[in-house]
Order: sequence, then structure tokens, then C-alpha cells
Amino acid sequence: MVMPRLRARDLGVNLGAGSPGPLNAITDVKGVRVGHTTLIAGEGKLTPGSGPIRTGVTAILAHSGNLYQEPVVGTTHVINGYGKAVGIAQLLELGRIETPLLITSTLNVGLVEDALTQFVIEQNPKAGISLPTPNPIVAECHDGYLNDAQGRHVRKEHVYSAITTASKTVEEGNVGAGTGMMAYGYKSGVGTASRIISTKQEEFTIGCLAVPNCGRRGTLVMGGIPVGQFLEQKEPTKETGPAVFLGGSIIVVLATDAPLTSRQLQRIARRAVIGIGRTGSIVSHGSGDFVFAFSTAFRDKRSKDPAIVNRPYFQDPYLTPLFAGAIEVTEEAILNALCIATKMVGRDNHTAEALPLTKLSQLFS
Amino acid sequence: MVMPRLRARDLGVNLGAGSPGPLNAITDVKGVRVGHTTLIAGEGKLTPGSGPIRTGVTAILAHSGNLYQEPVVGTTHVINGYGKAVGIAQLLELGRIETPLLITSTLNVGLVEDALTQFVIEQNPKAGISLPTPNPIVAECHDGYLNDAQGRHVRKEHVYSAITTASKTVEEGNVGAGTGMMAYGYKSGVGTASRIISTKQEEFTIGCLAVPNCGRRGTLVMGGIPVGQFLEQKEPTKETGPAVFLGGSIIVVLATDAPLTSRQLQRIARRAVIGIGRTGSIVSHGSGDFVFAFSTAFRDKRSKDPAIVNRPYFQDPYLTPLFAGAIEVTEEAILNALCIATKMVGRDNHTAEALPLTKLSQLFS
Amino acid sequence: MVMPRLRARDLGVNLGAGSPGPLNAITDVKGVRVGHTTLIAGEGKLTPGSGPIRTGVTAILAHSGNLYQEPVVGTTHVINGYGKAVGIAQLLELGRIETPLLITSTLNVGLVEDALTQFVIEQNPKAGISLPTPNPIVAECHDGYLNDAQGRHVRKEHVYSAITTASKTVEEGNVGAGTGMMAYGYKSGVGTASRIISTKQEEFTIGCLAVPNCGRRGTLVMGGIPVGQFLEQKEPTKETGPAVFLGGSIIVVLATDAPLTSRQLQRIARRAVIGIGRTGSIVSHGSGDFVFAFSTAFRDKRSKDPAIVNRPYFQDPYLTPLFAGAIEVTEEAILNALCIATKMVGRDNHTAEALPLTKLSQLFS
Amino acid sequence: MVMPRLRARDLGVNLGAGSPGPLNAITDVKGVRVGHTTLIAGEGKLTPGSGPIRTGVTAILAHSGNLYQEPVVGTTHVINGYGKAVGIAQLLELGRIETPLLITSTLNVGLVEDALTQFVIEQNPKAGISLPTPNPIVAECHDGYLNDAQGRHVRKEHVYSAITTASKTVEEGNVGAGTGMMAYGYKSGVGTASRIISTKQEEFTIGCLAVPNCGRRGTLVMGGIPVGQFLEQKEPTKETGPAVFLGGSIIVVLATDAPLTSRQLQRIARRAVIGIGRTGSIVSHGSGDFVFAFSTAFRDKRSKDPAIVNRPYFQDPYLTPLFAGAIEVTEEAILNALCIATKMVGRDNHTAEALPLTKLSQLFS
Repeated sequence: MVMPRLRARDLGVNLGAGSPGPLNAITDVKGVRVGHTTLIAGEGKLTPGSGPIRTGVTAILAHSGNLYQEPVVGTTHVINGYGKAVGIAQLLELGRIETPLLITSTLNVGLVEDALTQFVIEQNPKAGISLPTPNPIVAECHDGYLNDAQGRHVRKEHVYSAITTASKTVEEGNVGAGTGMMAYGYKSGVGTASRIISTKQEEFTIGCLAVPNCGRRGTLVMGGIPVGQFLEQKEPTKETGPAVFLGGSIIVVLATDAPLTSRQLQRIARRAVIGIGRTGSIVSHGSGDFVFAFSTAFRDKRSKDPAIVNRPYFQDPYLTPLFAGAIEVTEEAILNALCIATKMVGRDNHTAEALPLTKLSQLFS
Repeated sequence: MVMPRLRARDLGVNLGAGSPGPLNAITDVKGVRVGHTTLIAGEGKLTPGSGPIRTGVTAILAHSGNLYQEPVVGTTHVINGYGKAVGIAQLLELGRIETPLLITSTLNVGLVEDALTQFVIEQNPKAGISLPTPNPIVAECHDGYLNDAQGRHVRKEHVYSAITTASKTVEEGNVGAGTGMMAYGYKSGVGTASRIISTKQEEFTIGCLAVPNCGRRGTLVMGGIPVGQFLEQKEPTKETGPAVFLGGSIIVVLATDAPLTSRQLQRIARRAVIGIGRTGSIVSHGSGDFVFAFSTAFRDKRSKDPAIVNRPYFQDPYLTPLFAGAIEVTEEAILNALCIATKMVGRDNHTAEALPLTKLSQLFS
Repeated sequence: MVMPRLRARDLGVNLGAGSPGPLNAITDVKGVRVGHTTLIAGEGKLTPGSGPIRTGVTAILAHSGNLYQEPVVGTTHVINGYGKAVGIAQLLELGRIETPLLITSTLNVGLVEDALTQFVIEQNPKAGISLPTPNPIVAECHDGYLNDAQGRHVRKEHVYSAITTASKTVEEGNVGAGTGMMAYGYKSGVGTASRIISTKQEEFTIGCLAVPNCGRRGTLVMGGIPVGQFLEQKEPTKETGPAVFLGGSIIVVLATDAPLTSRQLQRIARRAVIGIGRTGSIVSHGSGDFVFAFSTAFRDKRSKDPAIVNRPYFQDPYLTPLFAGAIEVTEEAILNALCIATKMVGRDNHTAEALPLTKLSQLFS
Repeated sequence: MVMPRLRARDLGVNLGAGSPGPLNAITDVKGVRVGHTTLIAGEGKLTPGSGPIRTGVTAILAHSGNLYQEPVVGTTHVINGYGKAVGIAQLLELGRIETPLLITSTLNVGLVEDALTQFVIEQNPKAGISLPTPNPIVAECHDGYLNDAQGRHVRKEHVYSAITTASKTVEEGNVGAGTGMMAYGYKSGVGTASRIISTKQEEFTIGCLAVPNCGRRGTLVMGGIPVGQFLEQKEPTKETGPAVFLGGSIIVVLATDAPLTSRQLQRIARRAVIGIGRTGSIVSHGSGDFVFAFSTAFRDKRSKDPAIVNRPYFQDPYLTPLFAGAIEVTEEAILNALCIATKMVGRDNHTAEALPLTKLSQLFS
């Protein structure tokens, strides 16, 4: 009998002292929504430009309103810049996110950015005419081991669908941007997690959505246990696509309702690498490891009046529990992606096995 | 009689002590080539998505070979990050440029990046299959005062044409990415300049291509003379599109044949802001001011063998003349863009006057 | 008859459209105070460690209270990092200034930092015992052409005196950290300036204190006029100390009462280079050009309760006038330092001439 | 019978797949030397300024020559900037280290920097007169729980002694900068480790010296095992000095003989945080976590001729094994510091227990 796919926590993995929110998902941060478009078509030999197709796009929305009109405070931190994420310079300059945040296949970034631009224009017909141009944010990992990456199959309608169907329920595994991803020599996908953080007076939530595409099989660590050493060492990728997969990549998105500045979000984003490291990654040369972080606590206004508004300010000495939370949700989201993803056969019959949960469950009992 | 358009130097502007190269263009750096595609169509009322069209794309090639196979050392410096340039994170991480460098209209960045990706794939059919994904570099300014920017009219064939027709001759003014740009309240465009730099033993060239889209009319300075104060103060943009044009932007590309590391190119790129400042800009809130710099002296190889190669190293104390040159070429390229550009009527009959050279020539005599 | 020393504005230099505050000094920002200790002793041949002494220390205080207990929001921007300023990493991480900000002679930074540490400890006897260690901020320029720099003559009592005598009146010229400095081939010193900035509803002040030690004689620009070209070209430093003085350096301190975040102060600090450029500097290889910026509008509290406080937030689109102001005060403070400083004979009879105001006044009439 | 202090590897901790060098120390990198001065005096109640004294200074020398005359390529990476390290801006700008690298007690940084300045001057009598001022590098952690930190007891003679007695043998534990440090609720100190790295043709060494002063007892991880959970949870620091010790800090110094540029060393330095994370740290708000990295492969020359020299260049795709090595040596150096350090009673009879090796050894058998 085959064991069903379980989230890492349900498998018995030790995932730290913090308490997850009700969904243990990034959408535990009030107002945050996630949507996926998943594209799976064709099989067998790769015909560049045609298929097989194993790709998709994931949208994370900081709130349900018009993000261009009411941006949220945000930032990004580049752990290893071997990646093609779009929108970074303006995000760092202004410390705000003014579009849905999209994740997709590396070579597909241009088309997805174009679709996102069109989406914002349709919502805001004056953008780029009498209002400023929007700053689309698109991150990526390379799904070329399973997918016809050159085909850039994610088009405008797929982007729109991911945005407009976004909801509080976050599907994990082989969906959206995670469709064609691999990590630690196994099928990866989308994962998510959350933690409740308390100061003396208040309670906040920090959540993560991760798309891991990094790591070698032998190095996988789950809850402190070097499980990679107990797994079959022969990685499929070693045989066929080494140049592509020596690298890998990971996109981490962190959301919180704590009222942070972009400087403080930066400090939180910089902790994600410890969560990544806890799963065994060494952030290799070719890995594009990017973190995005935003706070839903304060909505900027496109309208510029008045010059000065009041904003809550979270004092830095209280940040440490949020740092701990950021690390835990990053670690758990990565492991959830691996635990939920299922076996996939892709282009040229490249096969990504699912993480063998049955075998692993013995290590956590 | 109307005065012909003249480059700033021919108008008598004092442009510093340095000696320009034979063409006084970025292509004085051996091997560098520049190509433009210029799109001008329609007139009258704006129909978003249709026209009028006043836009284009400019390609700068570090050498005539396969840049993906033989990247050059490069970097970028963000002066003010209110911009959407693509390819920044990987450029900073690896310190190399592996595609033609493109400049276009802000909202058009996604489609242009996609076309550039396709171009690299066609040259390198294994890219993204068994070889790494390329890192396309696309910079932008917003041409929405004259152009139907929402239409994103620069398509694949225009990108290919700019790349494949690139040559040593650099056309200036209303061409390529400069087609729809304005600066200091007048029609702007593409400008270029170069300087010859000598150490004791060697001679090097530094060149610039600039696409200025920044500045208010009253603040224009040419060769130290605050000419803006002598010009009519009523700017067209003030009446119709203030939100769009409060900002402006500028893209500066610096090329040299001095054998520099990416750290040293960074130091040079950081000087460009002084050249921009010399023309009167204060780099306002909404200005996306980006500098790209590369050296043609050393070609990296995609092939990874051997692990260690020899590379010439330029000692830092000799950099100061290159700093001075970087400032001078940036200043002169900006002024050339303004001096060569001609009057243009665009969407909604928005009119960008040419810089009044006849009037200005009196100030330089 | 010798012309008296005049501030640049009184000499007729065109210094932009903005309105200075009542003192045209950094202390026009309410609460800011400045103090100097000036050390001048001995003459003739250099005896390293003994003299002649031409040095000092300048203290800028963001407010008159206990800065360690009530820090202000601040940041720093490194234009060219050939300098030894202390306190940078923590200032960037936390975005706050918690000590007086000191400027002194390069080799003297260690002793001055130690004295500042002692000063904070005496004010806060628990610092480093049961309270956190303070983050002293000390910037520097090299005064070795006139001063026995190796002697490190600024000691604890001089630091204390500069801090405790700080007042609203800012002395300029050959005082404090400016005592032994040179710029553009002439005697430099301390300079200051301010501007009043208006939004629709409010009025703010931005002020600058600069210690310029940079630039070559031929390149000096005042109010857009390349005065350096009209001055005697033979620089004293060229004959005797080229290696030391090829570089130079400049420290710029910007203060404002606008309620800015550290990210926004960073944006302002990054504009200072344009003000420096306006006076003719190219920021040469060996120049340590550092900018510090702070806002007096909000006092953080060392006490950590409560976790969340309210803080005024200044919207980014209103920043442009502050950018313009930052550039103007930097330019004017540099020129004031040169205009007020007087001739000085230092070690080995090295002579720094005063900027020849009589000659220059003809250029501004 | 009390178990002798053992290095982590000898205790049976799983420290990764890499091979240590002969000494498993930073000095396995040829030419690198390390020296300590250890100051222990007095006991009982704290008299600020007098004692008890539990502090010191550690010197790391990149080679045995005159570092000011022949600098090495280097860089720094700030993981969390709550720290007072000196020399950072110039190190980042020029990518070179030109003095011994010192580590000491936080409040003592000024005096130690001054002593290092004096040391360089004595070796190079023209420094700051006709040659440029040196850039001293001094890092720190706060030893105030055990030491009279306000006393700043490390003086010139101690700095000189650490530098001049530096050798290939690296003492670990309660020595030098590690004398008064604590980590994970136990006595910490100095630790070191190394790895041999192979490319196809060559063999290189990467080494680390760490001074860990970070982490809470419950979070300690050794070789993937969360040993902190099996140890007594009552930390001494919780009772007496929470404000001081919530933070902690860590200094990591990485050395290699691979011929890297400062950009590449930066990439390596950025991996150290994963090694830190492997020992259980979350890099809390108050932790000053700084990494310094240098390569001994190429010696720059103060003499500026000729402008261009040849330098070996290590291709980026070969960096991944060095990344893995950097992580492993950081992890192992931290654990060695804890394993070798012995119990210490300091000011106010504050007691830092040694890590209980006997108890831990059961976990690794």
C-alpha cells in the first residue's frame, strides 16, 4: 500500500518550537491570497518550443484590493544572484510592492512580466499614460529538466488565471511555479507554512511560500536529521543534465502582518538563508536564491496627499521572534514542497521521483 | 535659416580636458557595436494599444562574437532605482554580461526581454536545455509623453533587427530607445561620446551611450553654463502629464578596453552620476537612473576548463583618469542626445521641441 | 587692503534657487548643535609624533539630550570607500545614530572613537555592563600635508570639549576637523549651509556640515563657473606630497527635521555626490567620500516598551525638494569651507594658501 | 574522572564530507599565522575600569611580509550589522587587506585600532606622511558578561604581542579575543578548522578562525544533532544580564590560497551564515555577525608600477566546492571553540560553564 503524501509536520519531522497558524500557510497572514496555474501536456521526446510541458505560474497577492493603488511595504534580499528576477531595483528603492508577486519558469519571465504589466494596465487604465508605470515583480526557477523551458508556455491567460483565482487555500506540490521543479534530487513543487509570533501585547503571523529547486540528494536534512544519507544516492539529474542542475535555485516569499519598515523586512528576509541551510543546501554557484518579504500592516496610497501620515512602528529589539519564525517557516515550506510533490515524468522521459515518505517515516518515528 | 543639428562639442560647449576618440562614440572602444530600431507611426489622439507610436530599441554589443559563449566582465550601478531594468541580480553576482545589452520603453521591457531570450536560444540551441539559462539585460526609460507606451510596440523582429544591424556607426537623436524620450523639457534621444585615457605605458578608451529622459527645463547646464535659465520656462509636460514626467530617468552605458574587474567597473559606474549632475539633474524621486559598465579586454568562456586562467589586472591607483573620463563621456553623451534630437509631435499632439541651438550658440561663443 | 573672508553667498556665487535658513547652517535644523576643538601648535620641520600640530575634532549632536538613550533615525552612504569611518555597519543595520557624530584626522580615528566610547559610558554607566554597547560614529579626512598626522594629537579632553561646548553657532574655516584640511589646492576647513523646504502643508529644514579635503586646483567650480581655470595652476601639494594628496576626501553630514525613515535618508544622502560634483570633484581613487544623514523628527527610545509606537511617515513623492536641498547645501557648505578658511603654514613649512577671494570676486560681479 | 577537552571531530561530531588539512586550522593555508594575547586578572565584584579582566586580542596575518607594502585580496560580508568592526568601507572599496586582522572586545576597538595604526607606522615610517594612511581592520564581540569591558584593558603592548608572536600553531579556547566570550550558554573562545578542496588540476585549502559569542543554550546543534535540547536549560546569562546577552555576536575569518577576486571572496563569505546556522544560531537582533575573507594567492604591491600585471583568475563554476568548504570550516571552528574552551569565573562571579563533553559524547557514539 502506498503511503499518502503528507506535510512534513504530519510525517513527524521536528520543525521547531513555534506554533503554526490555522492553515500553516502564508495565507494565515490576513488578506494574503495565493493562486496557481498549472500546465501539464505532452510526453516523451523534447521538441523545443512544443513540449512536453511541465510548468506554471504562482501568484501571491498581499491583499485583495488594487495593489497598484494601495501598495504594501516590501523588500527583497538576494542570497545568490544567479537568477533573473524582475522588479528588484525599484522594490529596493521604494520599499514597496505594487503588483501581485509572480513566480514562474526562468525563460518565461519576460512573457509573464508582460502579462502582469497588461493586468495592471487593465485595472488602472491611466498607468503609463498619466499615472506612473507599475513595477511588476516576477521571480523564477529553472524547470528545464522536466519541462520544455525554451517553449515559454506560460502566457497571458495563465497569468490572469493565477491572479484572479487566488484564494486563502494554498495548494502545494506539483502546482503553479512548482510544477516542473526538483530539489534534493526529488520532485519538488510549492510549499507553504506559518508561525504565530507574540510580543507582550500583540500577536502577529509570519508566513512563507517557497518554490525550492535546489540541493543535491545526499545533502537533504529534515528536522536536523541528514536523511539524504539514507536515500538512494543515484540522482537522475547527474546522468543527463548536469550543467543545468548543478545549480538549482529557490524562491522564498515571506509575509507578515507585523508593521515593519522595508529595512526591518530586509533583516527578516536575510534570515531565510538559515532556513534554506537547515534543509541541507549550500547555495551553490548556479543557484538563484531570492527572498521577497512584505508586510500587510500598512497600505501606502498612490494618491500623494497629505505629505505626512502616521504609521505604526515596530521596535527592533522585538524582531528576534520574527527572525526565528522566518527561519522556521522557510524550512517547513521547503520540506512541505518536497513531501507533497508527487512523481513526474517529463521531457525526454526524465523522471523525478517523489520523496520516499514511507522510507523516511521510519526515521521520524 | 534653420541651424543644422550639431553635436555639443561642435556647438562650442566646454566639455572638459580629455581627448575624444576618432568617432567620439562608444564604438571607439574596439569591437563595440550599436544598433537601433526606430518605430514611428500614426499621429493625433492616443488610442491605447494602437498608437501613435514613437518608440524603439537600442542594442549595445560588447563584441561581435557569441556573447553567451564568451561573456565580458561587467557590472551595474543603480543611482536611483525607480526603474525596471532586467538582469541586474545576476550581473552583480557574476560580474559579467552574456547578452547584447538592450534599452527600450519601460512597459515594453517584458516583451523585449522575451525576444532577447529567444535570440540567445536561436544562437545557442542548448541554452536552457543542457546549458545554463542566459541572463538577458534590458534597461528602459518611459516614453509615454509622446508614445503609446501601453501598446508595447517593440516586438521580436525589432529586437532582432537592432542586434543584427549593429555597427560601429552610432546614430544619435530620435532613434532606437531614444525615439520617444525627453530631457530637460526638450526632445531627447540617444547620445554617445568617448575619451582616450593614457597611463604611462598604455592607452585605453572609455565610451558612453546615454538615453536621457530626465531633468526640468530650468535646470539644464551645458559645459558649466546654466543655459536652462536663458530658455523659455514653460515646459509642455507641465500642462498635460505631470505625474508621468516629474520623474524622468536615464540609462548610461559605459564601455572600456581597460582590463578591469567588476569591482573596478563598479567604481567607474558610480562616477556617472557626476556627469549626469553636470547637466543639471538632481536625480528626482521618480527618476530611474541606471548605469551599466563593461570591459572588452577579457572574454570569459562558457566552457569551464581549465579552472584557472591568467587575466590582466589594472591597478587601482591608475583608475582616476578613467573616473574623469567616465564623467566626461556621460556629460557629453547626454548633451549630444539633446543637441542632435529634433522636434517631435506625438500622441495627443504632445510636442517636444528641439533644443534651440541657434539661441544657445550665442551662449557658447 | 585685504578683502575679508566672506561666505560664498556673500561673494556673489550663484547657489541655487532655494532659501537658506536664518543661520544658513546645519543648526537651522532645530536642536542640532556643533562643537569644535582646534589644535594648532609648533612650526617648522616635521618631527613625527611631536608636531607641528594642525588638527582637531568636530562634533555634531542631533539633539541636546542623551543620544544613547534617545537615538535618532540616521544612515550613511559611502560614495568612495577609501576612508576609515567607524560605526558604519551598525548605523546601516539599525538606521539610527546613538552618539554624537565626530569628524577628525584619519590616523586619529581610533583614539577619538575610544574617547567617544568613554564619554557615552560616563553618561550611561550601565552601557556595556547591563545595557548594550554604544555604536560610536567617527569620520575622518587626512590632514597630513599640514599636520603631524602620525602624532594623533586629538585626545580625550579634546573630544569632550568639542561635545560639551557644542552650540547653535557653527564656526567655519580653520577649526575643528577642518583645521588641517585642503581642497582644490587651497586651504579648506569646515563649512555649513541650510535650506528651507516646503510641501503644501509643512515647512522643513535641511542642513549640511562639510569637511572637504578633495579636488585639484584646476577643477574648482563655484556656482557653475569653472574658477579653477582662472587661478594659478601650480599646486603646493604636487611638489611635495603627491601620493598623499592625489586622493583627498570629504565628509558630508546632512540633518533634517523632516520625519524620514533610514531608507529615505539614504536616498537623500545619495544626492550629496551631485553637490560635491558641482564644486568640480571627480571623486578620485584615493578619496574617502562619506555622507551621514539623520532626522531629528523622531526619537527612538532605548527602553523597549511598548513594541509598537506611532511614527510620522513622509511620503516618497514629496522627497524631490529635499533632494534638491541636499545638493544645494552640500555645494554651499563646501564652498563656505573654502571661502572662510585662511592661509596656514604647517609641517615642513607646507603652505596652504587661502582661496583668493579678491580675484574671484571679479568673476561673480 | 574528568574528560579532557577534545576538538569536535575527536568527540565524534559529524562534520561533513570534506577533508581537513594537516592542522585542521586556518594556518593550513600556507603563510597564514595566528597570535593571541590573553588577559586574565582579578576576581569578584566588578569595579568598572579596574576589573576583573577576562579579555584579549587575536591577530590573523595573511602572510609574514609587510602587509601594508604587499596587501592581499580580501573582503567582508556583514550578516547582521549590530557590531562595531572597523575598516569595512575601504576593504569593500579596494578589495584588499593591508594590515593584520585583529579581533577583540567591543568597547576596546578604538584603542586596538590605534595600536594597530601605530604598528603599521613603525613598520612603514612614511605611512601618513608621504605614503597613504593604512586601513586597520579590527572586529569585535562583547565579553561584558565575564570581563570588565568598560576597562578596555587591551593596550598597545598586547596588540603588538599578538602580532609579533603569531605562528602556524593556533591555540583554541579561552585565548586572545575568545578569552571572555560565551556562546550557546556555555564558555566559548577561539576555534579553527580547515578543508582541502580539489578542482580537476589543483588542490586548495580553505580555513576558518571563529570567535563565537552567540546563541541560546537550547538551540545548540552539533553535527545535525540538536544537543541543546538535552542540556540543562537554565542559562546563567538569563538571570543577570539579559539585555547584554540577548544578542551575542560572531566573527568569522576565512582564508584560502585559491586565487580569487574580492567579488568571489564575497560569494564565499556569504556562505558562512549557513555554517553559523548549522550550529543553531538564528542571528538574533543584537548579534553582530561579521565575516572577513582573504586570498593569499596574489600579493598586490603598494608600488604602482606597472599599471597592468597578470593575475591568475579562478573561474566561478569551480567555486561550489569552496562554498561547501566555507560552510564546513565555519561550523567546525565554532564547535571547536566551544569544545576546547574551559569553565571560567569572571566579574561579579559570573560563571561560564564549559560545554559538558562527557554528557555530549554519549550523543555521538
